[in-house]
Amino acid sequence: MSSSTAPAAQVAVSNGIAAPDLDLPFPDRPEIITENLLKIVDLAPNPRTRLIFKNLVTKLHEFVSESNITTEEWMYTIDFLTRTGKTCTPIRQEFILLSDVLGVSALVDALNNQPIGNATESSVLGPFFTEDALDIAHGDSIASEGKGDYMFVEGRVLSTDGTPIAGAAIETWETDANGFYDTQYADRSAPDCRGRVHSGPDGRYAYRAVVPVAYPIPGDGPVGELLEALGRHNNRPSHLHFKIDAPGYKSLTTAVYPEGSDFISSDPVFGVKKSLVVTLEDVDDNEEARKRGFPQGKKFKHLNFDIVLVNEAEAKAALAQRVRKQV
Amino acid sequence: MSSSTAPAAQVAVSNGIAAPDLDLPFPDRPEIITENLLKIVDLAPNPRTRLIFKNLVTKLHEFVSESNITTEEWMYTIDFLTRTGKTCTPIRQEFILLSDVLGVSALVDALNNQPIGNATESSVLGPFFTEDALDIAHGDSIASEGKGDYMFVEGRVLSTDGTPIAGAAIETWETDANGFYDTQYADRSAPDCRGRVHSGPDGRYAYRAVVPVAYPIPGDGPVGELLEALGRHNNRPSHLHFKIDAPGYKSLTTAVYPEGSDFISSDPVFGVKKSLVVTLEDVDDNEEARKRGFPQGKKFKHLNFDIVLVNEAEAKAALAQRVRKQV
Repeated sequence: MSSSTAPAAQVAVSNGIAAPDLDLPFPDRPEIITENLLKIVDLAPNPRTRLIFKNLVTKLHEFVSESNITTEEWMYTIDFLTRTGKTCTPIRQEFILLSDVLGVSALVDALNNQPIGNATESSVLGPFFTEDALDIAHGDSIASEGKGDYMFVEGRVLSTDGTPIAGAAIETWETDANGFYDTQYADRSAPDCRGRVHSGPDGRYAYRAVVPVAYPIPGDGPVGELLEALGRHNNRPSHLHFKIDAPGYKSLTTAVYPEGSDFISSDPVFGVKKSLVVTLEDVDDNEEARKRGFPQGKKFKHLNFDIVLVNEAEAKAALAQRVRKQV
Repeated sequence: MSSSTAPAAQVAVSNGIAAPDLDLPFPDRPEIITENLLKIVDLAPNPRTRLIFKNLVTKLHEFVSESNITTEEWMYTIDFLTRTGKTCTPIRQEFILLSDVLGVSALVDALNNQPIGNATESSVLGPFFTEDALDIAHGDSIASEGKGDYMFVEGRVLSTDGTPIAGAAIETWETDANGFYDTQYADRSAPDCRGRVHSGPDGRYAYRAVVPVAYPIPGDGPVGELLEALGRHNNRPSHLHFKIDAPGYKSLTTAVYPEGSDFISSDPVFGVKKSLVVTLEDVDDNEEARKRGFPQGKKFKHLNFDIVLVNEAEAKAALAQRVRKQV
């Protein structure tokens, strides 16, 4: 009947799903809105979807009702979420940052990677992992010369019973002395301060790096605005990232945090577990530094970090325990 | 120390806020993450911000923990929210749509506009309000000829004690017979099926329009994906929007829903309150139709809708009651 052409601005077609066979009261009071939605969600075909959305609707509506959110506050929230989405680019993930500062990334990590025996604990992945790290030979450097103070990292990859694990791939990445990852430089042409080493037959690995430093998470977007509104600082303590994969073992994403680092007890993303705090040993020995491959010699920091992985059977047993709690 | 140029990809500078003077334990278990964050939020300078974020953190962490959200589910959520943000344009607000289908828009409306005496109840604004509606003279049409079946709308604007309110501005907008708002047409050159009428000295208003029809909300974005996952249809029942402003009275955003409309008991955005269901009267009288200004004559639907507004004193009293509950 319309004399205009067909709409093109947005596709709005019926999804073909029938109206639910429910006799719902009019949502004339706040609690009826919640009750009606819960009855509708209960018809979702997938049981896991049902469980998640019944919990989500319950908690979300409790939050809005108990906080007595005003129309203006909700419109601000809509605008905040929209700007958070608009801030995301291929090299920046503002929703992960939001999840980080609200403790949800750490919480999801904690729920999904509960400590198993003496295995190394996990930490948050963060937004600076890349797919293009290069393979580095045993003892070589992941950082180009001049990127920071020298640090030598070594240790063993072991199973929980102490057996050395050979051929484990260890991805590792960190900031330079400016507190920036390579991806934060506009002129990045190749990976730097990141690399992949492999454990040898005795489980040993070693590489040269630089001493990581504390750095601020991006403060120029909505998450920066949120931290300021909450009166929270935005500086992460210095740390060195690891992602370890070995055949037959559960993949481990973790990081170590040098003790005494600024902000170690107030990490804005809640990444610092006690077992991940490490000691950097000072080695002031020019000859030793040169022997380890540091071109300028003089002195370096030494980090010894053994990595204990859970095998697939141990991981499966832990997962089975989690799944029993899920549906 | 770095040999690279200064970073340009993202601004990451310290916000200058000091670390909190708190002795927090390492967040080694899920519940410690929540407890630490609540202690940090308790330092927010603004009391309303403190209250909102303490509630938000509590409910959000309860949702994640009690649902035992997996790493994969959380990464899907991050991606879903990112795509929702990316779907927003100047003429499309996917986060409002998300808020609508999760019942939050209706809940915020219900909390902020609780019924006061015999005043007309509110309904959700929806995403199709525009700022460019034109003034229409008493009895004129908001829809260009051919946009749908004829409908004549009239009534009075009254205060709660029945006094007529003169000079109220009544913005009204609706779909055409195709179920589309004017903004959904790529070739929109001027407002159509929307306009602003004013009540006369006796509080009376009248305009010609078309019979609105049920229509699907956009299903080609993340919200469409969500509704399908939940097995929910995406069709709103037919309705006519109103936004009424009068000096000395609280602004009212509402809509009326013709009884018997498809989907009236399963509105995906929970907008239909019982008091907003109206009867469209059939008038099959060619002469009467022409007298009312319908060029083709024949027959039309007739809607009589009186609008009762709360005055500022009544609104202030209701607000004071809400504010007492807020901090």
